[in-house]
Amino acid sequence: MSQNVLGTNVITQIGILVNDIEKTSQAYAEFFGVEKPKWFWTDTVDVAQTEYMGKPSEARSKLAFFDMGSLQLELIEPDQHPSTWRDHLNAHGEGPHHIAFVIEGMKEKIAVMEAKGMKLIQKGEYTGGRYAYMDTFPQLKVMLELLENDK
Amino acid sequence: MSQNVLGTNVITQIGILVNDIEKTSQAYAEFFGVEKPKWFWTDTVDVAQTEYMGKPSEARSKLAFFDMGSLQLELIEPDQHPSTWRDHLNAHGEGPHHIAFVIEGMKEKIAVMEAKGMKLIQKGEYTGGRYAYMDTFPQLKVMLELLENDK
Repeated sequence: MSQNVLGTNVITQIGILVNDIEKTSQAYAEFFGVEKPKWFWTDTVDVAQTEYMGKPSEARSKLAFFDMGSLQLELIEPDQHPSTWRDHLNAHGEGPHHIAFVIEGMKEKIAVMEAKGMKLIQKGEYTGGRYAYMDTFPQLKVMLELLENDK
Repeated sequence: MSQNVLGTNVITQIGILVNDIEKTSQAYAEFFGVEKPKWFWTDTVDVAQTEYMGKPSEARSKLAFFDMGSLQLELIEPDQHPSTWRDHLNAHGEGPHHIAFVIEGMKEKIAVMEAKGMKLIQKGEYTGGRYAYMDTFPQLKVMLELLENDK
């Protein structure tokens, strides 16, 4: 049996692309009987240092989170700059975009996955950590996001 | 604040449509370092009593499950009979199909959701319970599956 590439099998987040985060947040809040969370922008480019397909991008998204049992459901409304969020939304419309895992050792995990033919699509920083979207679609039929939080 | 329609916010399952359950199961098993689970067919029509878009259907799928933290990831390879699985796969290709919640009182939940404009797409029985796929895509940007297990 092979080793677990990520060192975890705990899905911590499901990310869903939307066109109107206000409207969809309101629908979730009503359906699940919770307060509508405030959405917020991902960090500006100086903090986020976003790279999409190997190039710096000013892309940002509005994000809103709902606690759904042991994981979070993340609504994502991207701006118009190039990103996996914007391109996926344009190509496929609204709907699920990724599942996320909290990992340790981002650089090493990315290297191991790239050696398996799973390409780094987008990466960036956020206050307290960093993320990477990996193109695992050919193998796993869903995109994975790696999240690494500083200790 | 409104009441939680489902009486739960715990996502118990993520369902992913695939063309080749053997191949994708193998990829998951290798990536997450687990044994490849055996897939199995959903029940035959006499047990499943599947209804798709209000009509009986002989549709079946091959299913394989992976434990991913507190929830299951379900791979679904549908046969060629009419079903949400087959139609979604034909229309959108491989990828996420639904998120599932374990509920109580299936008939009542379906009625409440239909009153909100969320249509029943497909329902059926399995040993020990029953399921319903509800078209929540317009509101929640993902399809919900309700699961009710006998006590």
